Amino acid sequence: MTAPNLLSATEAAAAIAAGTLKSETLVRACLDRIRARESEVEAWAYLDPELALAQARQCDREAPRSRLHGIPIGVKDVIDTVEMPTEYGSPIYKGHKPSCDAACVAQVRELGGVILGKTTTTEFATRHPSKTRNPKNGAHTPGGSSAGSAAAVADAMVPIAFGTQTSSSIIRPAAYCGSVGYKPTFNLVNRAGLKFLSESLDTIGVLTRTVPDAAMIVEELSGSAPARFEDVATLKPRIGFCRTPYWTQADAATQAALLGALPRLSRAGASLDEVALESDFAELADTQIRMSSYEFYRALTYERTRFPQLISDSLMTRIRAGSLVTRADYQKTQETAERCRRKLDDVCREYDVLICPSATGEAPRGLSSTGDPVFGLTWTLMHGPAMTLPVFTGPTGLPLGLQVTGPRKSDARTLVAAEWIRRALTD
Amino acid sequence: MTAPNLLSATEAAAAIAAGTLKSETLVRACLDRIRARESEVEAWAYLDPELALAQARQCDREAPRSRLHGIPIGVKDVIDTVEMPTEYGSPIYKGHKPSCDAACVAQVRELGGVILGKTTTTEFATRHPSKTRNPKNGAHTPGGSSAGSAAAVADAMVPIAFGTQTSSSIIRPAAYCGSVGYKPTFNLVNRAGLKFLSESLDTIGVLTRTVPDAAMIVEELSGSAPARFEDVATLKPRIGFCRTPYWTQADAATQAALLGALPRLSRAGASLDEVALESDFAELADTQIRMSSYEFYRALTYERTRFPQLISDSLMTRIRAGSLVTRADYQKTQETAERCRRKLDDVCREYDVLICPSATGEAPRGLSSTGDPVFGLTWTLMHGPAMTLPVFTGPTGLPLGLQVTGPRKSDARTLVAAEWIRRALTD
Repeated sequence: MTAPNLLSATEAAAAIAAGTLKSETLVRACLDRIRARESEVEAWAYLDPELALAQARQCDREAPRSRLHGIPIGVKDVIDTVEMPTEYGSPIYKGHKPSCDAACVAQVRELGGVILGKTTTTEFATRHPSKTRNPKNGAHTPGGSSAGSAAAVADAMVPIAFGTQTSSSIIRPAAYCGSVGYKPTFNLVNRAGLKFLSESLDTIGVLTRTVPDAAMIVEELSGSAPARFEDVATLKPRIGFCRTPYWTQADAATQAALLGALPRLSRAGASLDEVALESDFAELADTQIRMSSYEFYRALTYERTRFPQLISDSLMTRIRAGSLVTRADYQKTQETAERCRRKLDDVCREYDVLICPSATGEAPRGLSSTGDPVFGLTWTLMHGPAMTLPVFTGPTGLPLGLQVTGPRKSDARTLVAAEWIRRALTD
Repeated sequence: MTAPNLLSATEAAAAIAAGTLKSETLVRACLDRIRARESEVEAWAYLDPELALAQARQCDREAPRSRLHGIPIGVKDVIDTVEMPTEYGSPIYKGHKPSCDAACVAQVRELGGVILGKTTTTEFATRHPSKTRNPKNGAHTPGGSSAGSAAAVADAMVPIAFGTQTSSSIIRPAAYCGSVGYKPTFNLVNRAGLKFLSESLDTIGVLTRTVPDAAMIVEELSGSAPARFEDVATLKPRIGFCRTPYWTQADAATQAALLGALPRLSRAGASLDEVALESDFAELADTQIRMSSYEFYRALTYERTRFPQLISDSLMTRIRAGSLVTRADYQKTQETAERCRRKLDDVCREYDVLICPSATGEAPRGLSSTGDPVFGLTWTLMHGPAMTLPVFTGPTGLPLGLQVTGPRKSDARTLVAAEWIRRALTD
């Protein structure tokens, strides 16, 4: 039998509902895996094994409340938890204990899930790295900002972990570590209790090992109708291959992996076209940076005025740039984004999904940078679903992701097409 | 000489900059007024006179940092402050001390403003009343949810106070108490550190006694270009008189006050038309309620699952209704809202502003209800600026407001036209 910590959440929940697996057994298996691997990976900002086991035993005494019942979940440490410290990746918040669980955390508990612990984040979910190492090769970055969530899930320490994305903070670490990463449509998961950096962009999502697991938790939290994975077997997806304006920043292996996938997708039954986005999409990386900097400058006013010496130089540089963005400049960024969102709605009438690289290459060597977010910026700004699938391997043996995106609110369709693509490229 | 607490913020700041008024003198005058009146009005959730005076003395030692320098500000108690408890109007948060100032609070401090204290709020800025009484007549409600901010400003306890609006929580109490209320364009004031109830609607704004004061603080916080009040003298505004779909819910005095103002505005030089909104605008009150209920249910998960006995029956009923709103229903509310926003953009190409009632009538007698929010719902959902002006008096001598609204991002134009209207009706 598969070790419980290797089960997907969907498999484990079915076994728990059938009475063939106890939540306590599953949580113990996850804790054992963490005990064995944490000194190498350092994915966790905080763990309380006894608290997690107590929650699991409580779940085992109850009838299943939802498809999450008994499933352990990791929570990125920019999301508030009452029973565990929440430090936002910053020394300013050392030992900080919030007074309220974030909405998504309290919902997981209500749905019968188990909060296993807090996963590391870069400083305020920006660039300054956490302690976490890539579980596939500890000399490489796990990416960021959802570093701990990506590493823990990829390393079978937990089947699901919350992440957040403002630039590429779910997609990039998931691609680097070899997990599935899902940034849902903006506002699909409630953000109360998330430490706000950029309220126009910050999006809560999940890192998992399977596409249906990612769908399941977001559906449970949002009250969405389930994605119809039963349709995958007969789907003939219309796929738009989109180099994006940043294609030349992808390394040769990434370009080759993407290009090599196209005939395989065609042979498996997809219709495939190359999609060129209009020229204003080329402005979006810069637009994302100006928009978020304006918001960082304001959202972090308390921290930057009271504790400037505890903010990294790189973040302080970004914040200072935000002080120069006027409201008129900021409004232009919002207008550019909205115009491109509508154009993307139009483009996507012809396609079920678009595909593009998840990152510029494999996880870079070294722990001082979390890698280049460029392939995430556009899709965060577009507010639609984006998912990375661990379907390729790079030249040094580290994972490479394929990114699948859709326009706003197309989550169910995007998830089903992503699962089709995953099967076509790996099964 | 005018008592300092009766000065507008703009006047006081000019006097402070000119060296003819000390911030400490102004803050003492506000504290004296509070001491004299608080037992009747009960506008404050928390006051720390010594802390406010210490801030004022610090301001007096510095050159002016901004147009807010030395000005005392009240902060609605749904907005986090480190140095003062923040209870969100709920017994769940008795004595709660946040770890971070909200962005708008930290910005005020950075800009040289003085945080005078916390003003009362209804329970989580919803309907269950605070202790506050209407300063014009203590047997009447001050309205809600920004009850303390409206009462304190109208009663000359402080020149500016932050409020928030999800339904009609700035406009209604301002109209009932006789202050100016300004709900800016959605997202104009950064919301980090606001207790989230409905992230699609919650908007931070201000209560003041003058239109330029309201403009000034929001411009300072947002980095917007100043509204051109110097244009008021020569303006010939194009005003759309909009009964809204809720006109018949306004009482006879309110209807008469509005209708009586029209010829006066015309004589003063406005061009005036009656504007009928399309039929889908009639859905907006219901749309606002469904959208916010879906979000309340999620945002308050921690509170409703851990402390259900500490939530009022009326809020619990609203929350439970939110559990029945599916994501598909919710998305329809977002689509309806967005469609109407675009229609409003079109309507407003012909007008500088629309005018309508601020509330259904005078502040109702009794303290068990905060009054009917119906005239606020549409404009919160439309995401544009809304302002109430204390330009009418009702049959029992209490204030009646005139509401001035515009489409998204038209704040500067709306503020200037509102000031023109105020002068036309009162000077």
